Amino acid sequence: MSSARLDAQEYARGVREGDRRLLAKTITLLESQRAEDVELGQEVLELLAPECGQSVRVGITGPPGVGKSTLIEAFGFALLEQGRRVAVLTVDPSSPVSGGSILGDKTRMIRLAAEPNAYIRPSPSGLTLGGVAHRTREAMLVCEAAGFDAVIVETVGVGQSEAEVESMVDFFAVMLQPGSGDELQGIKKGVLELADVLFVNKADGDGLAAAERTHGEYRSAAHLLRPSAEGWTLAVLLGSAKTGDGIDELWKTITAHQKLMKETGAFDTRRAQQGRAWFRRLLDDGLMAAFQTDPAIVKLLNELESDLDLRKTTPPHAARRLLDRFLRR
Amino acid sequence: MSSARLDAQEYARGVREGDRRLLAKTITLLESQRAEDVELGQEVLELLAPECGQSVRVGITGPPGVGKSTLIEAFGFALLEQGRRVAVLTVDPSSPVSGGSILGDKTRMIRLAAEPNAYIRPSPSGLTLGGVAHRTREAMLVCEAAGFDAVIVETVGVGQSEAEVESMVDFFAVMLQPGSGDELQGIKKGVLELADVLFVNKADGDGLAAAERTHGEYRSAAHLLRPSAEGWTLAVLLGSAKTGDGIDELWKTITAHQKLMKETGAFDTRRAQQGRAWFRRLLDDGLMAAFQTDPAIVKLLNELESDLDLRKTTPPHAARRLLDRFLRR
Repeated sequence: MSSARLDAQEYARGVREGDRRLLAKTITLLESQRAEDVELGQEVLELLAPECGQSVRVGITGPPGVGKSTLIEAFGFALLEQGRRVAVLTVDPSSPVSGGSILGDKTRMIRLAAEPNAYIRPSPSGLTLGGVAHRTREAMLVCEAAGFDAVIVETVGVGQSEAEVESMVDFFAVMLQPGSGDELQGIKKGVLELADVLFVNKADGDGLAAAERTHGEYRSAAHLLRPSAEGWTLAVLLGSAKTGDGIDELWKTITAHQKLMKETGAFDTRRAQQGRAWFRRLLDDGLMAAFQTDPAIVKLLNELESDLDLRKTTPPHAARRLLDRFLRR
Repeated sequence: MSSARLDAQEYARGVREGDRRLLAKTITLLESQRAEDVELGQEVLELLAPECGQSVRVGITGPPGVGKSTLIEAFGFALLEQGRRVAVLTVDPSSPVSGGSILGDKTRMIRLAAEPNAYIRPSPSGLTLGGVAHRTREAMLVCEAAGFDAVIVETVGVGQSEAEVESMVDFFAVMLQPGSGDELQGIKKGVLELADVLFVNKADGDGLAAAERTHGEYRSAAHLLRPSAEGWTLAVLLGSAKTGDGIDELWKTITAHQKLMKETGAFDTRRAQQGRAWFRRLLDDGLMAAFQTDPAIVKLLNELESDLDLRKTTPPHAARRLLDRFLRR
């Protein structure tokens, strides 16, 4: 491709100037399976580092069918009307959508995607959750350097991705649908307690009464959940992504949260902790990857895991054998 | 010490025969800071591996002052009356209690500790949470090989230890005290959703009405929390560790849970997953430890973390620099 001739400086300049093609290409480099692409992408990211970190980072999760895309689209337009630039990233480790496409399951947000001040990027494919999370964090930084001042990270709402997303945003919203108990089993254990806000959706038409009931239940239970940050009370909102009801209130809740976090210093602390935690995770993953690229190690690892299942060894003994082998290479 | 002359076979035989002195000494070896003690301890553990895994593993947490020790003592005596042998281990990364002591903060369980069929072992001191958790898992295996058929793991109920404990037991109980909201802030986010049972304590004397109210609140909110396992409904019990009310019901809840988990196969799956997760954690920790024993690496690590805080670099770039340095040694 012709852009392969661009160097890191040129990519970085393009991103800073808000060139959407170079923004997309930079993220594609970072998601690439080719080592030289990743190398170049990382150089670009390094150049952009000082411009990163200026956006409001919002995570949104909820069970499948709750209306996340509809909400994000409505919310995105509300932000555009305020003169903001909005990027939407998704974290979906099982997504079959190919790297740079804005089609696939994102056709749902096609109106927002067509806006010049919005940018929608689906989850990279073919990666583990950890890999997807790393790539999403990188894409967020690139979007920030490109001047997007609101970054929304959407999760599919099943599995482990909620905690990953919560660990990369300033504010975490959990969407709920009318009904409770069994209907909510799409939400993973512990997720409610990561929330800064619960948004009960579908308070429209025939569903209004049910949504109001659910909203009341969660409001009365909210004090049983530990607050996500000191001084913050879990907000429980009622609204409709379809009609747009509650969207303004959601934004007000986010800004009130940001204000409080900045006043208490929790904002900077959290960002610094998130950065260091990401760094440590990358170190862990990188060490493990180096470990697992050694065929003799992989063979021994598999043998030891079988022995463990048969209780022929203990985890400490197995780990020591494997580490001794690796470190004495 | 004279026992230093014993070899691994002799330790293992002693543990299997239920020799309390050798049981304690084996755990002390595993907790030692001396490499040769740990080596010997691991050999003993390896010999004991086939005898491990036969106990009911119960984790108990709750905010400070909720009455965990009183409950565990009452519960322990109830199990002794059934003819069971009970081991109690604690996970408290900040504990100042020395390695092999049963004194310190465990004087509260002194009656139980005096029973021949009970064994109480406090948290090893001077370790990180990860270190404490590894040592506790090892101590649990040693206790199982010594014939203890119920192992209770107590957490201090603050910080990260709840998730660690939940990851090493079959059944996780969260104790609550009368009142809600602010009073419960000793419980960490997400802990309620790890619970297989909530036990509202202090339903006695003047506190009865308040405990009943709290019990009612949690019962009506329980269906909002995702069940800890398929087919299991979070049980919410009311009782008093002081009077013993509710202790029988707690045991019945545990046995009902074990029965269901064994019927669905979730019991074996969970145990195998826990073993493999422990193994992977040990690998991660071991790699990280090897990494951090290299002074040049530690120096670079500190420099890069400062740069990260100043946004002079990005986590991916910093991690790559450090890994390249380590792997090219």
